[in-house]
Amino acid sequence: MPPRSAEQRTDDVRQKLRDAVDCWVVSASGAGDAYLVPLSFYWDGTRLLLATPTNSRTARNLRRAGAVRLALGPTRDVVMIEGSVTFIPRDLLDDARATAHAEHTGFDPRQIAEEYVYIAVLPRMIQAWREANELDGRFVMRDGHWLIGDEEKR
Amino acid sequence: MPPRSAEQRTDDVRQKLRDAVDCWVVSASGAGDAYLVPLSFYWDGTRLLLATPTNSRTARNLRRAGAVRLALGPTRDVVMIEGSVTFIPRDLLDDARATAHAEHTGFDPRQIAEEYVYIAVLPRMIQAWREANELDGRFVMRDGHWLIGDEEKR
Repeated sequence: MPPRSAEQRTDDVRQKLRDAVDCWVVSASGAGDAYLVPLSFYWDGTRLLLATPTNSRTARNLRRAGAVRLALGPTRDVVMIEGSVTFIPRDLLDDARATAHAEHTGFDPRQIAEEYVYIAVLPRMIQAWREANELDGRFVMRDGHWLIGDEEKR
Repeated sequence: MPPRSAEQRTDDVRQKLRDAVDCWVVSASGAGDAYLVPLSFYWDGTRLLLATPTNSRTARNLRRAGAVRLALGPTRDVVMIEGSVTFIPRDLLDDARATAHAEHTGFDPRQIAEEYVYIAVLPRMIQAWREANELDGRFVMRDGHWLIGDEEKR
């Protein structure tokens, strides 16, 4: 298959952010122990909204790092994202976004006995590629800016 | 869907190791910078055999750590693996395994101009789960031993 254009990749990434429910979240401790877990997310148009137990290994790692790397799959249709993270106690997230998150992901962290926290991820780098012939031109966002359509679509 | 039995999960994991081509490989630097990349693998019955450029970020991170965490997807049918890593220079891997790896993954690291290295992953922990109701009982291997069928199947 020939490589997709930058426009097509950007459209595909935006659609995946809207439609996908799960992502792979990678994190590491300060000692360099890497960790990986699948988490559901909701895309509000600007940020990915995740939720995890407040004391989970992922939450502790991301609190330390202040940034996250995550991927939407499958492995032959990758969207790779790096972004900064903001922790939002579950009582403090606005109802509209909390409800949208619950509807999209199918679980509501506000209803769970264990203490959960929302994690908002603001992407600053996004790459999209399928096969090796798409590794060139894989960046669709750098330094927080979409390379295509930044003005009209956000 | 009701949770799968331990036997079913073990069978599913073995099948996925045989049939799947790609996995998500997570690693971290000594400073705690997490990294994630999809890589192809070949399962020889005991080890996952990966290949990556000798100086890639993943290779450097794994050389430091001596261990790896990786996942087979999708996110709602997870196989999570922790294992020790052994680096094998591409000229030193036996032909039979190198050829089996090339046939399974569709690429042959021996034929690439850039210097590649094989990484053999010996699992010591494997988990398998689909949805939240399968988090209990997710271990199918601990301390390098399959919990089910260790004797007759290996």
